[in-house]
Amino acid sequence: MTLTGNMLIGQHATPGTREAVRAINPATNAALEPAYHGGTTEHVAQACALAWSAFDSYRETSLAARAELLDTIASEIEALGDELIERAVAETGLAHARIQGERGRTCQQLRTFARTVRAGEWLDVRVDPAQPDRQPLPRADLRQRQVPLGPVAVFGASNFPLAFSVAGGDTASALAAGCPVIVKAHGAHPGTSELVGRAVARAVKHCDLPEGVFSLLYGSGREVGIALVTDPRIKAVGFTGSQSGGIALCQAAQARPEPIPVYAEMSAVNPVYLFAGALKTRGEALAQGFVTSLTLGAGQFCTNPGLVIAVQGAALERFISLASEHLKERPAQTMLTPGIFNAYETGVGTLAEHAQRLASGLAAQGPNQCQAQLFTTRAQDFLANPRLQAEIFGAASLVVQCANDDEVRQVTEHLEGQLTATLHLDDSDIEHARALLPTLERKAGRLLVNSWPTGVEVCDAMVHGGPFPATSDSRSTSVGTAAILRFLRPVCYQDFPDSLLPDALKHSNPLALRRLLDGLREA
Amino acid sequence: MTLTGNMLIGQHATPGTREAVRAINPATNAALEPAYHGGTTEHVAQACALAWSAFDSYRETSLAARAELLDTIASEIEALGDELIERAVAETGLAHARIQGERGRTCQQLRTFARTVRAGEWLDVRVDPAQPDRQPLPRADLRQRQVPLGPVAVFGASNFPLAFSVAGGDTASALAAGCPVIVKAHGAHPGTSELVGRAVARAVKHCDLPEGVFSLLYGSGREVGIALVTDPRIKAVGFTGSQSGGIALCQAAQARPEPIPVYAEMSAVNPVYLFAGALKTRGEALAQGFVTSLTLGAGQFCTNPGLVIAVQGAALERFISLASEHLKERPAQTMLTPGIFNAYETGVGTLAEHAQRLASGLAAQGPNQCQAQLFTTRAQDFLANPRLQAEIFGAASLVVQCANDDEVRQVTEHLEGQLTATLHLDDSDIEHARALLPTLERKAGRLLVNSWPTGVEVCDAMVHGGPFPATSDSRSTSVGTAAILRFLRPVCYQDFPDSLLPDALKHSNPLALRRLLDGLREA
Repeated sequence: MTLTGNMLIGQHATPGTREAVRAINPATNAALEPAYHGGTTEHVAQACALAWSAFDSYRETSLAARAELLDTIASEIEALGDELIERAVAETGLAHARIQGERGRTCQQLRTFARTVRAGEWLDVRVDPAQPDRQPLPRADLRQRQVPLGPVAVFGASNFPLAFSVAGGDTASALAAGCPVIVKAHGAHPGTSELVGRAVARAVKHCDLPEGVFSLLYGSGREVGIALVTDPRIKAVGFTGSQSGGIALCQAAQARPEPIPVYAEMSAVNPVYLFAGALKTRGEALAQGFVTSLTLGAGQFCTNPGLVIAVQGAALERFISLASEHLKERPAQTMLTPGIFNAYETGVGTLAEHAQRLASGLAAQGPNQCQAQLFTTRAQDFLANPRLQAEIFGAASLVVQCANDDEVRQVTEHLEGQLTATLHLDDSDIEHARALLPTLERKAGRLLVNSWPTGVEVCDAMVHGGPFPATSDSRSTSVGTAAILRFLRPVCYQDFPDSLLPDALKHSNPLALRRLLDGLREA
Repeated sequence: MTLTGNMLIGQHATPGTREAVRAINPATNAALEPAYHGGTTEHVAQACALAWSAFDSYRETSLAARAELLDTIASEIEALGDELIERAVAETGLAHARIQGERGRTCQQLRTFARTVRAGEWLDVRVDPAQPDRQPLPRADLRQRQVPLGPVAVFGASNFPLAFSVAGGDTASALAAGCPVIVKAHGAHPGTSELVGRAVARAVKHCDLPEGVFSLLYGSGREVGIALVTDPRIKAVGFTGSQSGGIALCQAAQARPEPIPVYAEMSAVNPVYLFAGALKTRGEALAQGFVTSLTLGAGQFCTNPGLVIAVQGAALERFISLASEHLKERPAQTMLTPGIFNAYETGVGTLAEHAQRLASGLAAQGPNQCQAQLFTTRAQDFLANPRLQAEIFGAASLVVQCANDDEVRQVTEHLEGQLTATLHLDDSDIEHARALLPTLERKAGRLLVNSWPTGVEVCDAMVHGGPFPATSDSRSTSVGTAAILRFLRPVCYQDFPDSLLPDALKHSNPLALRRLLDGLREA
């Protein structure tokens, strides 16, 4: 298969006409062929028209047919073989094993959504049968199901070129919900995007679905991105990226004549609490685990542990000393793009001005390499200086030393919304942790005990979300099967004849759903 | 009991210090005592501080304790007896029987939410147990529950002084979710609001809950309303009222440093489709049913049938003639406020300029009386003139005459988002209706067959919501038990020891919830 540099407007390979972008291999700074020319607002309008024309039929495909599409996309991605792996490695600087693992995760994610679609829990069927004899007024027959919002615009992330990109969680959950998807490819991995986009388009064709179910566009955020979000046929947006990018999309979506929801997953520093008992009994294991989590993938994870909070004392001193020793031995790692590397360097520079540097990892051996960094500060300084709370995307972390439990509480209340908060504790720490939990539940979408926040399982119970500015909508998760709920709305059918009801609501319950029937969940 | 004119900041009766408002009896234009002085931003801050301090404890009350609060509020409202009925009648011009019925509905709504809280389905508990031996990586123990967003600001509606006001659906569902509530009383029924507010505060005290669980403020939307929505301790907003008011709140909420969700239920014209078969076989019944629904409560319902859509012909002519005859005999009815009456007159005046008047009801016999009105226009004129789609709050409706099915489809696609769409059909019309359904599902939150949209059941399957501008958030309903979902967000607990897990997530499932356990719903 040869990369073409074309967009996909439905099944139609379409070259862009705006400025060309080539991917950069961050390990060498070499530009990769082919050129990807950006699309125009006209291309956006074409893709939206196709998506709109596909919507009414795609959303009423059977659960089996929609699951089949998701399974087929997974198979088509696997069928891309090594070409996908090689291209993704070249475009991201990530290791082969990491990309292979991410491909596995991406395909498993698609198949998980296929199972979720088939199970049909997400339809949240509620039936209140007629009560013709009720006094003082009879009750009508009322039935509710969830329907998809409409075509969804997806903006992939740079740090997961497969799992949070063209056929990642946003696309999988939107397709599962019954929404056509238009992806704006991330400029950092256009070749990976083209390969995966063609795999999706092949699956759409193989499943005999209307071509508008999926399109893939290239181009600038300002032209193509804003045109997508403001097109009246787009009804929701999924985004993973920077806070400034996410907020810009939210504002554009709110300024529309018809505002639409934007699910933007933006930024977090993911506080890790080290309690006294745990620090005392296993400082070495904590130091090792922390540095491993911090430096995983050059720290380029939304859930990277960028903040450590603990009460000062000998045990914390020992942890800091051990963590510093471990960090100093960590090799520098290639970051995803020169832009991300430069932002990391700037962030580290700012931190160095306002906090005390504890240790640095091994120096860079090539371009765009992230040298891990560990800093420390006192709680009062952290509370006084908002720059110390800013996310640094990469392997840098800040240890906030608190004088006592009350300062731990103050620092916690001071935090912005987070994706995760992690507690390391022994039995002797349980009551200290319990006292902090109500605040942490208000601050984060996922709370962990004696674990590390990097690593986000795709399952029913996962929450990859959290209060602003971790995400733009704390009511949702972008990872796990509950992500499908973002793209649905309820519709109630009153006194409908059975022949006009959708299958999910028919009296005979042909889909064998566990409905909420007259207030009781069916077994 | 004597009305005092005081606000309630928690349990504290507090006089406002801004300009006084007195309720107007719209049937006589007489001002009613006492004066209600508006609150200040300082009063808002006090109420928000109390609500915030109550949040962490209130949200972890047992399901039984929270249900008990809702049941107690219902009992306290009933204990207000005739004083509540008399005051509400005086402040609204609505009939005694209507207010008595609305009191019953309001108390039933509170008790329905009490049952919903106890059943616990809304917690949406999901458990993915640890898989320590999974390859290539073990799976952690992951558990998800829903937690409340935080204190909620509620803006009551003028047209339901009980069911959509101080202790109405927004308050009941927010309290059910575990959110403290601050109500800004509607200026049209301050006395009713005070009586109900004191009943709620008594219930809070009786249940030994922190006083910040409920506060009641008076004052201007611009000062008190915006201060409430922009206070950082408020985490969501419920609103029922005009489109301009709802959009202003949405914009204020989006402009916050931390944007929050606003659930604004705003406007709709609620199209009614009369299909050929139904028109032919039961034009008389349809005409009678239509005029009854249109003029119910002087047409002051969000679901009032303001638009009738049908293919022209003899059967439609007959319907129009019969409906006109019925309408002409309808007495004028007192509207809720002089402001609403004036807006109705203005809206009818605009319609009279752009459409053809078919009939008017009986002339007014007193102040602020709504004279029912029926207009007609052709589909092409409707499509060309946006003023014909504007909501007129009151008993006015417009019959859009279409040349054929295609024009019906065009008119339908042209509609803005709606709360309801109603289909009147016979067996012979089924296929015509089926062809229209995909569009209607995109346009409205509730679809009815051979029924009338006025009358909104409080049950599990109800959707009182719909695409913008019917509401600001089509993913939600403001009536029915699913309204609780508006005030929740998911939190995931990873590898938590049982002693730190909330009851809903403990291994022994002490609340006996039907959890989604390892992908399967428990029986």
